[in-house]
Amino acid sequence: MVHVKDELVRGTLLSYRPEIKVLDCTIRDGGLLNDHGFEDKVVEAVYTACVAAGIDYMELGYKASKKIFARSDFGAWKLCDKDDIRRIVDDNPTDLKLSVMADAERTDYHEDILPRDQSVIDAIRVACYVHQIPTALDMVKDAYDKGYEVILQLMAVSVINEADLAEALEAMAGTSVTAIYLVDSFGSLYSEQVKDLTLTYLKAIEGTGKEVGIHAHNNQQLAFANTIESCMLGANRLDSTFFGMGRGAGNCPAELLLGFLKNPKFHVRPVLECIQKHFVPLFEKLGWGYYIPYGITGQLNQHPRPAIKMKAGDNPHDYVSFYDQMIEED
Amino acid sequence: MVHVKDELVRGTLLSYRPEIKVLDCTIRDGGLLNDHGFEDKVVEAVYTACVAAGIDYMELGYKASKKIFARSDFGAWKLCDKDDIRRIVDDNPTDLKLSVMADAERTDYHEDILPRDQSVIDAIRVACYVHQIPTALDMVKDAYDKGYEVILQLMAVSVINEADLAEALEAMAGTSVTAIYLVDSFGSLYSEQVKDLTLTYLKAIEGTGKEVGIHAHNNQQLAFANTIESCMLGANRLDSTFFGMGRGAGNCPAELLLGFLKNPKFHVRPVLECIQKHFVPLFEKLGWGYYIPYGITGQLNQHPRPAIKMKAGDNPHDYVSFYDQMIEED
Repeated sequence: MVHVKDELVRGTLLSYRPEIKVLDCTIRDGGLLNDHGFEDKVVEAVYTACVAAGIDYMELGYKASKKIFARSDFGAWKLCDKDDIRRIVDDNPTDLKLSVMADAERTDYHEDILPRDQSVIDAIRVACYVHQIPTALDMVKDAYDKGYEVILQLMAVSVINEADLAEALEAMAGTSVTAIYLVDSFGSLYSEQVKDLTLTYLKAIEGTGKEVGIHAHNNQQLAFANTIESCMLGANRLDSTFFGMGRGAGNCPAELLLGFLKNPKFHVRPVLECIQKHFVPLFEKLGWGYYIPYGITGQLNQHPRPAIKMKAGDNPHDYVSFYDQMIEED
Repeated sequence: MVHVKDELVRGTLLSYRPEIKVLDCTIRDGGLLNDHGFEDKVVEAVYTACVAAGIDYMELGYKASKKIFARSDFGAWKLCDKDDIRRIVDDNPTDLKLSVMADAERTDYHEDILPRDQSVIDAIRVACYVHQIPTALDMVKDAYDKGYEVILQLMAVSVINEADLAEALEAMAGTSVTAIYLVDSFGSLYSEQVKDLTLTYLKAIEGTGKEVGIHAHNNQQLAFANTIESCMLGANRLDSTFFGMGRGAGNCPAELLLGFLKNPKFHVRPVLECIQKHFVPLFEKLGWGYYIPYGITGQLNQHPRPAIKMKAGDNPHDYVSFYDQMIEED
């Protein structure tokens, strides 16, 4: 039997890296499917399941700007107000850390992110496109100064050119964040690309004590594969969602990821329990997952927006017209 | 940007290996969902689409023993009789090669496989479990002597011990087959394992002029990922099915695989056309694809049989009971 001891791979099939942390973003990313309007019992069930499953972080939603997004148009998890969070988790007397996402240019971070000692939130994940790096750096500083753990994710990496990426990573590595995330926003990356990018991110943070994370999308049925690829090379922060719930084709399914990870602190059973009770009905209503137009936009390295529109339209299965249109626009 | 020039990887993102051949097994593997009872128009549509898409082989079904399987219980593609095949493809005046699968101990190969010059079939794929290797070798000889290209696949590799696998591969490498197939019958293999196995198979056939093929299952959403992983390391025969149709969680979707391959002879559009016309309705009726119990059997390295039974039962979404039962049996 050929066993390639790849010098790049950290750990083996029978060992585990205790430093690996799983972040659940079911309510945050899944909220893009229902305008963040989850019933309290669902958010509570995910919270309870995350605690029981040994998951490290639960991302509750967005700290969206109240000037841009009207409260009446969205559920509570678009804004993640203190009272809404406390209604679910009280003082969060558990080891599970709570995070929220703050999008560059769509968050009034100075006002809406409270000082850490007035908040039940543990971590702020700042998300930005490459041209928003300066804004993101200010957001990171603001959150760090307020006392939070800060995570930074650069979106749509598949459309960033090499020079810009190098500059962005250098800037990110110089901040006070604990982790920087590789994000395959369009679900377009193949494993070879995930490998090169993971190693590039790892090199950028070398010696800083920071971690690299991976957030994958399932447009080409590669979210789980790309997550474990990145993990094997040294990414220690792994995103997943219950039943893979997420915009479009969804995310890396937590039930697969936890089954793969060898650390005995992780338990898949509480996740299964929560899925069968709450996410099977949600799936029947909202229907994320594999859909050929997502595969097409993924392969063309484009945002899934036109595919999401196609799915909601009158001819969701006219894949040929969709393909022709995408090729023409390409 | 870190780019790892992995010595093991053949080809690059902008090159292609003309020796890569795609085998469509939609009707053969998909036939496990409907007892091989496809309407003629569907088989014709797949045939036409394979020709237009530049696919190299189309596997029509099984050469099952008429002593074991009653003709009245199955559609035509369980037996692949000459007249049934000719009704669809006539003399097959195309470059598409036609193959059928012959299962060890379930095929009366001496009688039912005609001499090549009386047949429109080009290739016989012999499938066996490791203990059936002696039978398989006789089947290979029979088919080769009759004038066919012969392909050999060893099933359920994830439960074969290393010594047995080495012996089996040595025996397979000594035959007159053109390709040996790595088959992840239980959809249980992770990419690291696919890597080691692909390299093991490649080493076994080194210098023989044979090729290595990969047939992946999607139980853990890894069929496409594992197919391209194996391909990048040198597997030149790749199996896929339209819309991923196949038993249980299904197979590597042809629409994703053809989009990934860079050889301009491959075209995804005819596949999309066939899928939207014929496989969307079939999917609504037969419903293959991701289902959590398939993920569980995959992770436990077991046959998906209990998951298939669960899905057809009264409580298909009681994942917790299924998990408990599988863990107990494990």
